[in-house]
Amino acid sequence: MAISPILSTIAVLGGTGKEGKGLAYRWAKAGFRVLIGSRNPEKARAAALDILGLLGGKVFVEGSTNIRAAELAEIVVLTVPYSAHRETIESVREAVHGKILVDVTVPLMPPKVTRVQMPPAGSAAQEASAILGPDMQVTSAFQNISHELLMHPEPIECDVLVTGTSQAARLETLKLVQAAGLVGWDAGPIENSVVIEGLTSVLIHINRETGSRNAGIKITGIRRDSEHHIAL
Amino acid sequence: MAISPILSTIAVLGGTGKEGKGLAYRWAKAGFRVLIGSRNPEKARAAALDILGLLGGKVFVEGSTNIRAAELAEIVVLTVPYSAHRETIESVREAVHGKILVDVTVPLMPPKVTRVQMPPAGSAAQEASAILGPDMQVTSAFQNISHELLMHPEPIECDVLVTGTSQAARLETLKLVQAAGLVGWDAGPIENSVVIEGLTSVLIHINRETGSRNAGIKITGIRRDSEHHIAL
Repeated sequence: MAISPILSTIAVLGGTGKEGKGLAYRWAKAGFRVLIGSRNPEKARAAALDILGLLGGKVFVEGSTNIRAAELAEIVVLTVPYSAHRETIESVREAVHGKILVDVTVPLMPPKVTRVQMPPAGSAAQEASAILGPDMQVTSAFQNISHELLMHPEPIECDVLVTGTSQAARLETLKLVQAAGLVGWDAGPIENSVVIEGLTSVLIHINRETGSRNAGIKITGIRRDSEHHIAL
Repeated sequence: MAISPILSTIAVLGGTGKEGKGLAYRWAKAGFRVLIGSRNPEKARAAALDILGLLGGKVFVEGSTNIRAAELAEIVVLTVPYSAHRETIESVREAVHGKILVDVTVPLMPPKVTRVQMPPAGSAAQEASAILGPDMQVTSAFQNISHELLMHPEPIECDVLVTGTSQAARLETLKLVQAAGLVGWDAGPIENSVVIEGLTSVLIHINRETGSRNAGIKITGIRRDSEHHIAL
C-alpha cells in the first residue's frame, strides 16, 4: 500500500498505555514511522523496544517525550487516560500546530464506567478542540477497539467510527484506520464524538452483563465490500 | 412464546407515524393487543385498519387518542416526532402512572439531522424521565431501526440497545424487542440513551455518505447464540 508522505510519521502520545501501544504496533507493522510519546521517555523507549522485538526489528519505532514526539510527527494521536487529557494537550499545543490531532480519549469517570458521563464541552474530543482553538483540526477515533485485540494478528470484529472538525481530517484519519487493519466510517462532525466515546461505556456494560471482554460494534445494512465506507 | 400478562396490551403513542406503525405491526403479529394512539383518533383508527388488513384480521389492533391508549395499556411506547415529545408526555402523565414508558424519540433538529444535538437534560429519554418524575420507569429503545424494515418479514440486521431507569424496566423492554423479532441488549442506565439517540444521526450521516438507506449497528465480540443478550 502506498502511504501518502504526509502520513509517514505518527506520534502516539501516551503510547506506553495498552491502547496506544496496540495502535503503535499496528502502524509500525504497516510501515509507518511511529514515535511513542510519554511523560517518562524511558518508558516510551522501553515500549518502542517491545514493539521492535515483536515485529523482528524491521520497522521504525522510537520512544521520546510527548512533546518531542508531537514535534517530529505529521499526525498526532492522543491515547492518554482522561485524567491526563487536558494537561497533555496543553503541553503539546505548539507542537501540534498545523497538524491533525486524533483523540482516542474516553472520559470514563471511575467507578461508574458503565455510565456515560461527558465533560461540559460535550465530549473529550470537543474539549480537545476547545483547548486547541478553531484553527486546529481534531478528529476522534478508535475508542471502541479492545486493546487486547490490537496486539493479535486476527481480524478485529469492531468498526471504527471517525468524527472530526473537517471532512479532510476525517479522511486522513480513515487512512490510519485502514493502515491498522480496521474498517472505518466517516461518522460526521466532531459533535458526534459523544456517541462514540459514550459507546465505550455501553460496551463495558454489555461486557459485564454477558461475562465477555471484547464487545464491539459493526455497521450493518451497507455492503461490506463497498468502497464507500473509506474514501481513499 | 408465552407472553407475560403484564405485557399483553401495548399502547403506541404517535403510532400513525412510520416508526410507530412498523412497531405496532410487529407486536400485533406477535400476539399482543396493540392500541395505536394519535392526537387524531380517526387517523389512529385508519392506521389500525391498515395493520389489520396486512395481517389478515386475526390480530388485535385498535386506534384511539393518545390518552385513551395510554390509559388502557400496561406498557406505553412513545414514537412521536421530537417537536411533540414534551407535550405528548405531559398529556399522558396521569395515564402512564405506574407503567413503563418506552421512549423511541430521537431529538433530531432539522436541518442538521446528521449532527448530534441533545436537549439540556442530556437526551430525549432523560427529558421524559425529568417530566414524569423519579417514581416513573422510563426506558429508551428502537431509535436505530429503519421503519422501512419493520414492515417487511425479513430478519432485520440491526440490534436494539435498551437503556432505562431500572434493570427491571430494561428487561421488560427487552421482551418487547424480542417480540418484534429483533435482538436487544441491556445498554445500561438512562444516561446512556444519549449514545443510542445520537447514533441515529451518525447512521443518517453514514447513509448519506454511502448512498444507502438502512445503515444499522450490530454488537460484535459476543456469541450471537448466547442467551446472555436477552434475559427472558
